[in-house]
Amino acid sequence: MNGLLTDLYELTMSAGYFEAGISNQVATFELSIRRLPDRRNFVVAAGLPQVVEYLLGFRFASEEIDYLRSLPQFARASASFFERLHDLRFAGDLFAVPEGTPLFAGEPVLNVRAPIIEAQIPETYLLATIGFQTLIATKAARVAQAAGGRAVVEFGTRRAHTPEAGVLAGRAAYIGGCIGTSNTLTGFRAGIPVYGTAAHSWVLAFPSELEAQRRLQELLGPNTVYLIDTYDTVEGARIAASLGRPLWGVRLDSGDLIEFSRAVRRILDDAGLPDAKIMASGDLNEYKIREIVAAGAPIDAFGVGAELATSADAPALGVIYKLVEIDGRYTAKLSPGKVTLPGAKQIYRFPDHDLVALAQENVPTPGAEPLLRPVIFHGRLLEPLPDAKTARARCAGSLERLPEAHRSLESAAPYPVEYSPGIGALIESARPHA
Amino acid sequence: MNGLLTDLYELTMSAGYFEAGISNQVATFELSIRRLPDRRNFVVAAGLPQVVEYLLGFRFASEEIDYLRSLPQFARASASFFERLHDLRFAGDLFAVPEGTPLFAGEPVLNVRAPIIEAQIPETYLLATIGFQTLIATKAARVAQAAGGRAVVEFGTRRAHTPEAGVLAGRAAYIGGCIGTSNTLTGFRAGIPVYGTAAHSWVLAFPSELEAQRRLQELLGPNTVYLIDTYDTVEGARIAASLGRPLWGVRLDSGDLIEFSRAVRRILDDAGLPDAKIMASGDLNEYKIREIVAAGAPIDAFGVGAELATSADAPALGVIYKLVEIDGRYTAKLSPGKVTLPGAKQIYRFPDHDLVALAQENVPTPGAEPLLRPVIFHGRLLEPLPDAKTARARCAGSLERLPEAHRSLESAAPYPVEYSPGIGALIESARPHA
Repeated sequence: MNGLLTDLYELTMSAGYFEAGISNQVATFELSIRRLPDRRNFVVAAGLPQVVEYLLGFRFASEEIDYLRSLPQFARASASFFERLHDLRFAGDLFAVPEGTPLFAGEPVLNVRAPIIEAQIPETYLLATIGFQTLIATKAARVAQAAGGRAVVEFGTRRAHTPEAGVLAGRAAYIGGCIGTSNTLTGFRAGIPVYGTAAHSWVLAFPSELEAQRRLQELLGPNTVYLIDTYDTVEGARIAASLGRPLWGVRLDSGDLIEFSRAVRRILDDAGLPDAKIMASGDLNEYKIREIVAAGAPIDAFGVGAELATSADAPALGVIYKLVEIDGRYTAKLSPGKVTLPGAKQIYRFPDHDLVALAQENVPTPGAEPLLRPVIFHGRLLEPLPDAKTARARCAGSLERLPEAHRSLESAAPYPVEYSPGIGALIESARPHA
Repeated sequence: MNGLLTDLYELTMSAGYFEAGISNQVATFELSIRRLPDRRNFVVAAGLPQVVEYLLGFRFASEEIDYLRSLPQFARASASFFERLHDLRFAGDLFAVPEGTPLFAGEPVLNVRAPIIEAQIPETYLLATIGFQTLIATKAARVAQAAGGRAVVEFGTRRAHTPEAGVLAGRAAYIGGCIGTSNTLTGFRAGIPVYGTAAHSWVLAFPSELEAQRRLQELLGPNTVYLIDTYDTVEGARIAASLGRPLWGVRLDSGDLIEFSRAVRRILDDAGLPDAKIMASGDLNEYKIREIVAAGAPIDAFGVGAELATSADAPALGVIYKLVEIDGRYTAKLSPGKVTLPGAKQIYRFPDHDLVALAQENVPTPGAEPLLRPVIFHGRLLEPLPDAKTARARCAGSLERLPEAHRSLESAAPYPVEYSPGIGALIESARPHA
């Protein structure tokens, strides 16, 4: 039961809508990107499967309703409100952009259209789900961009905000461009490649490093990746090299990665192992990787953890969930610095710009792709969602078509997002009655 | 089943320990604070209930084991290893500091002592669980400190890294010093006070702001908190004031909070509502709150969201999980900049310093509190854990006793943490055989 997994005010407002007799008025809420995080020129949409799972499974358990009854905030709510909660299911509509789609500031990620009581309560869950996974997919796209074709593996579950967040971070990072994740459950659930090496405890658990690495090779064969910095990286490389084939390669996890990679490369080459690879990890991010790549360091793959699984330099995304229509009326908030645009919208993606228009507005869109697609209609999933692999391909293809400035790690001028005449005309109509 | 919720390498190492015949050697792993995040002078330990729940529920489902069998990394693992996984339970020991305890760099949060296969696999889960919740409790302590006695409510689930992380963030924030959370499920599960106001959508859903606020008052009575910035804050305050009692107060969510709070205070006072309170929210953190408090702004309570639920300025905690003993042998890694200290440890908290000693070391500790306590012994929980309220009181009491410099928002000289002679003597013994 997931009904209580929301902010209390969603539930008190729902009670209020019910008591005011408007809880069945059809509302459209829009979840959109208010602003891009610093240094980001786009975000990569992710998280839709969890949104769908939540909406389709939405309900309250009896003991959850009993809990609400016990709260002072519900002291004046009527018995029939709690009966309504008991029977509440999501029977509305969801429109969303496919996972892996790059989006820009001001663009909607999804719309929920349903009786307002059904559309209001999901706000908190939807914001957290889309916001987090979109952040991670976006960060992964940056890291992969910096790696310039070298492989990046997501290694960050241990730093994720709960282990369960790590499961979803691994999936989102894959969509954004990682080749896989260290999270085994992500592999199991989402069919994403999983990778791993060994921890320092492996080396420590045996009486000598040589014995530890020999045992690793026995177990992993051509998938063996020796972690060589437990005691001394250069000596560790010599021990690894002494074991010859089979192996995939070695991992560096501390010290000056550029310098060590060169020394280790020589040791591997001198041992007749030019095909043995070098992976680097340890507090990496897109900037450090760019530096390593620019230095021409002989590093073949990167493991990125904390920075990726927490989107450390931008750990919260400015996504909002706003009422844009109710009962046929357009709505918008006018708070200073936080104005929203009324009306359910569509994004038309042209080769060189986006056009945001009202969903039902008749605008010329030859050659444009409408990004928001129907996902749930009258409470039913229309068709299975694309899998993570499809989303990853969509992301890669879309980013390739972006101008180079927008793919860079630095801020560029905003990507051209235009608004239709219909939207402008609506803003005034959204002001309240005097 | 939670067995796969870990990094792949924990599982390949487990296979390796098994194949090498050492998987039943008793190991002690220590989860400790490698370093404090920037500007933090302490962290507040949190997350123990989830650690206990994970360890006690640890197991693999058959289909999870089938998945592992299908991976290339397990191609050489024996059938008896998978049988071992199938029967694997956590039957070891857990020692941990109670939730709500402030800790400093280098100090252990918990020790796991078990056959190495049982102690290795939990690494990923334990790091993510303790790291995240400790970050949030720590951030909450800072925010509460800045608020100087004014109430702080955790509002951040919508920005948390998954909605489920929000549930735990609400609990951790309460331990750190918040008076409650907006997350309803946190209230239900952890018995923590829940709070809420109303969203802009509430005001937008009615034809006029006056009608919306009148309906809110009808529903919430003395718990009514009007959100007054949907269209115009000053006008919103007048509308709220015109409705008179009952009410709790109003919430400001945009614009210059100091300036608006003064204007709104006057409006409420002039309407004969001097007891009506003002809550502020909107991208707040400890620094902005300190500024607001220093300006003497008439704000009675703060709602803090994204910054708190993501620990935005320090979204990842440097916690490590290291093998410190195996089969009676002490172990330590010597990687550059990442040296660990061997041996299972105890922290003795004296009034003015901490002493970290080996667990079995005989050091004089009159007047000191040993912080690590037995929690699970031979796979059984020794006694129910203290609840969140107890942890919150422990945190508040402990922080009160800290020197003022260490309670400040800025970096102070490190709190005095001393190491026993026994630990120093061990470091050399931990070097491997030649």
